[in-house]
Amino acid sequence: DYQHVQVPFEITLWIMLASLAKIGFHLYNKLPSVVPESCLLIFVGLIMGGIIYGLNDKSPPVMDSDIFFLYLLPPIVLDAGYFMPSRPFFENIGTILLYAVVGTIWNVFGIGFSLYGICQVKAFRLQDVSLLHNLLFGSLIAAVDPVAVLAVFEEIHVNEKLHILVFGESLLNDAVTVVLYKLFRSFCEMPTIKTVDIFAGVGKFFVVGLGGVLVGLTFGMTAAFTTRFTKDIRVIEPLFVFLYSYLSYLTAEMFHLSGIVAIIACAMGMKRYVEANISLKSHTTVKYFMKMWSSVSDTLIFIFLGVSTIGENHEWNWPYICFTVIFCLVWRALGVLVLTFFVNRFHVNTITSKDQFIIAYGGLRGAICFSLVFLLPDFHRKKLFIAATTVVILFTVFIQGMTIRPLVDLLAVKRKRESAPTVGEQIHIRFLDHLLAGIEDISGHWGQYYWKDKLEYFNSKYLQKILLREYDQPKSSIVLLYEKLERKHAIELAEAGQLGHAPSHPSLLCSVFLCSNNDRTVIMDKKLEDTLNPDVLENIQEILARNLYRIRRTGPAYNRHTLPGETEPVEHAKEILILRHKSL
Amino acid sequence: DYQHVQVPFEITLWIMLASLAKIGFHLYNKLPSVVPESCLLIFVGLIMGGIIYGLNDKSPPVMDSDIFFLYLLPPIVLDAGYFMPSRPFFENIGTILLYAVVGTIWNVFGIGFSLYGICQVKAFRLQDVSLLHNLLFGSLIAAVDPVAVLAVFEEIHVNEKLHILVFGESLLNDAVTVVLYKLFRSFCEMPTIKTVDIFAGVGKFFVVGLGGVLVGLTFGMTAAFTTRFTKDIRVIEPLFVFLYSYLSYLTAEMFHLSGIVAIIACAMGMKRYVEANISLKSHTTVKYFMKMWSSVSDTLIFIFLGVSTIGENHEWNWPYICFTVIFCLVWRALGVLVLTFFVNRFHVNTITSKDQFIIAYGGLRGAICFSLVFLLPDFHRKKLFIAATTVVILFTVFIQGMTIRPLVDLLAVKRKRESAPTVGEQIHIRFLDHLLAGIEDISGHWGQYYWKDKLEYFNSKYLQKILLREYDQPKSSIVLLYEKLERKHAIELAEAGQLGHAPSHPSLLCSVFLCSNNDRTVIMDKKLEDTLNPDVLENIQEILARNLYRIRRTGPAYNRHTLPGETEPVEHAKEILILRHKSL
Repeated sequence: DYQHVQVPFEITLWIMLASLAKIGFHLYNKLPSVVPESCLLIFVGLIMGGIIYGLNDKSPPVMDSDIFFLYLLPPIVLDAGYFMPSRPFFENIGTILLYAVVGTIWNVFGIGFSLYGICQVKAFRLQDVSLLHNLLFGSLIAAVDPVAVLAVFEEIHVNEKLHILVFGESLLNDAVTVVLYKLFRSFCEMPTIKTVDIFAGVGKFFVVGLGGVLVGLTFGMTAAFTTRFTKDIRVIEPLFVFLYSYLSYLTAEMFHLSGIVAIIACAMGMKRYVEANISLKSHTTVKYFMKMWSSVSDTLIFIFLGVSTIGENHEWNWPYICFTVIFCLVWRALGVLVLTFFVNRFHVNTITSKDQFIIAYGGLRGAICFSLVFLLPDFHRKKLFIAATTVVILFTVFIQGMTIRPLVDLLAVKRKRESAPTVGEQIHIRFLDHLLAGIEDISGHWGQYYWKDKLEYFNSKYLQKILLREYDQPKSSIVLLYEKLERKHAIELAEAGQLGHAPSHPSLLCSVFLCSNNDRTVIMDKKLEDTLNPDVLENIQEILARNLYRIRRTGPAYNRHTLPGETEPVEHAKEILILRHKSL
Repeated sequence: DYQHVQVPFEITLWIMLASLAKIGFHLYNKLPSVVPESCLLIFVGLIMGGIIYGLNDKSPPVMDSDIFFLYLLPPIVLDAGYFMPSRPFFENIGTILLYAVVGTIWNVFGIGFSLYGICQVKAFRLQDVSLLHNLLFGSLIAAVDPVAVLAVFEEIHVNEKLHILVFGESLLNDAVTVVLYKLFRSFCEMPTIKTVDIFAGVGKFFVVGLGGVLVGLTFGMTAAFTTRFTKDIRVIEPLFVFLYSYLSYLTAEMFHLSGIVAIIACAMGMKRYVEANISLKSHTTVKYFMKMWSSVSDTLIFIFLGVSTIGENHEWNWPYICFTVIFCLVWRALGVLVLTFFVNRFHVNTITSKDQFIIAYGGLRGAICFSLVFLLPDFHRKKLFIAATTVVILFTVFIQGMTIRPLVDLLAVKRKRESAPTVGEQIHIRFLDHLLAGIEDISGHWGQYYWKDKLEYFNSKYLQKILLREYDQPKSSIVLLYEKLERKHAIELAEAGQLGHAPSHPSLLCSVFLCSNNDRTVIMDKKLEDTLNPDVLENIQEILARNLYRIRRTGPAYNRHTLPGETEPVEHAKEILILRHKSL
């Protein structure tokens, strides 16, 4: 009775195949270090497509655009948004938006118009492709694909800024792509185009992008609020993270807003509060499952891309296809050069020419273009567009994807630092943030730090009270880090069998004695402790604890949002100290 | 553009509603302690069904049987199988099978024939319901439902044996139900029934049940084997647990075998190996996600049950419906009494009359009956059967489900012990197992312990070598327990801020000094340690460690499967000791 179980059975088998393919690559350690996984997966897909084609004598099924947009894309974007490094993202948000909005428009019109120029050459026999169709094609081929970018850039480990520039662009250009694609598609079907339509199209950018952000943040805040009440049923906590972000995506799509932007806003908005509300195990589940899900989606997308390539959907026209590839490369390179020129004029921390090369070269196209081209209304040159899109995707993923790693090595592009920042560094960064916010405040300049500080104030004053379960004990990020390190250390000790009677590991970062309100920390090296006998040590600790308490009482921390008269910080410090004291 | 996102949007909304309903109940602490959650959820479903009915003036959609069997049931059964307490299950397997097979057949024929008797009474106007139709109805109404049983019994905490008897029966009777239901359904459509068909039906029991076990074990072993190779891609490890178990279910369903039995066999078979192969975080994800998924499925099932009840699918006939409820109760009670009489004759550890009452009273019906009755072929009395089934389900879930807890209190049924068994108890249980296996071996009786021991031998000799990644370091379950406790202790210490300078928690179970090969353990109470000064302590520990080593060298452990000449255990003990010694 195969009919009965067909749908879930085939889905499960596809996922299984994808996962097994993944395991297969990793059995040979050398392979994934030379060829990106995405290329290998497309290759598996090509082989499978070939087999299906050979056996059935008809084109294998192409990836359904609905399946792609409704089921495969959201997990990847959710994962990207949830694990987005928020600091570099917001530090470079201006540059990212410039690339994503202006850069994408530049590419769309550049590619569209120059392809129209090519179509005018009589020898190529392409005169029936109109300007609008070329622009429509440009709008779908211009957008850099987040899935392809992520797959390649996760393996080459370039520095954080470069990574976020390319990746952020690929995510945020979705709003522009959606607008332009839909605009040109409706223009194609309209008999005449009025000027007002064009202005309406421009206005739509803001609606689609900001609408997406709004929808995402609304769902994100609701998710955070919901997790306040899950204390008694821990088991369904992780569910809400997935449900609300998926709902935000679907709602945005429903109103023709940018679903990608919505889900990213939702994930980034809720992360902080959800993390504080749910239990540690729930959080592990959320993180792990998100990674797993996005990894499976990603694998399926590349395999399907390979499978869909095989078949009789293509119309081959050498000049059009070759010029498409060339124009994609040229216009992107030009766009990056021009935009970076302006960006560098307004920034101290400039983008080097090596970085610019990698940004231009890292403009990979992927499954989004592919799904969009299949969604085109039927017209006589659709197969040509499909062929050109397939070639561009394969070219960028295979040629650029495989050569980008050697190029990064060759150019000696700055890599990501291997080690995590130390506690000391973190404290200094935070201190500088406060300082710069203060300077901006005094100088009256409403810069990045000013807004960040205001947001933080709004957050602690209103949002946290509404969204967090245990607001009475707000923990600074450094206390959380300390707890995390202590826990990790404890597990390490336990695994080495040294618990209870072993001296503390001297190199351990968490040998930090914290009594922190506004992230002021007092560090006490545990190495000292090891050399002293227990009685003396206890004495010292008691004295220290008492003195620390006194220091805090006499001089409360400077805080831009609390006046010295307010008692809260003192009380809070007292509480921590009493707690700490008991444990000593 | 609601059309586009309708399907995933509505699914997500239903799940969201179910989860929010769950949170809602738990906000009022008193409610769930009086009324089982399943009742509350059905109640929510009834209200929603009423609203839909009121607004649309037509029956709300009933739960699709395909959705139930393909998507909602598997997660619950997987969860049940994966977390099945294997010891009580296998200890009582004979009794469970007796209840599940003979008991269910008894109920089917009992209910079927007596309802046929009722149909003969002219005053009831039911003479058109044939014997075969009554038997068909009996076959679907007789089976105890695992989802309903689990939902109620998880909340009342009866003793382990009683729980496994009712729950195991509800799981394993699936094979019988499947066979009888399909048999009677095909008999209904046949013009004449030959004797050979009846014999074929009896033979099918074994095929369906054992086939399910075989399919499940095959997939389980494959899953374990696959996780051997996931070391480099930890992120997709949890996926395999879900994929393979789901495939086992679908494959079994495809060949008309018992899917429930297959998925349970798969989960129980792979658990041990998968747990050893995958990382700790993957395992947390698997456990958590399984619980979450089954909890959501469970919630959805009860809500849908409520929604589906409302509407115009029912034909009301007082006598038939009342007698169905009465016969369900009476035949189950009789069946339990008779079967238990035989079980008690062959067992030392008998089932008390209180337990018998709870077993009979805990025979709840649920969504499986409901889905089966909708799957019936159309005939003129189908609506009567639907009405009777609905009433039986609501009666058992509401009346029996709500009164079972007070009854358990009233009868003072033995409860589950609150505390986990101590390490000492575990060692003794294991020791007795070995002893009994030895006695059975000598006396030539092939009992439970003999087979268990043989299986263990086969496992360590062949299966582990094939299925486990790190076979070189086989860890006995006690060493694993010790590690787990140490890790838990470490985290507790870290969270209390006592790491490094605090004395060990005296009540801690893991104050066990282990050098275990065949689970022989030496226990050293840490309380002693606390009263001694460190120098003396270290001395003692060194002496102890050395002596232990000597003891082991002079007298190697008795092991039924290794000869004294073999050096492996000695070497192994040496290794553990050296490791341990270093840490001291």
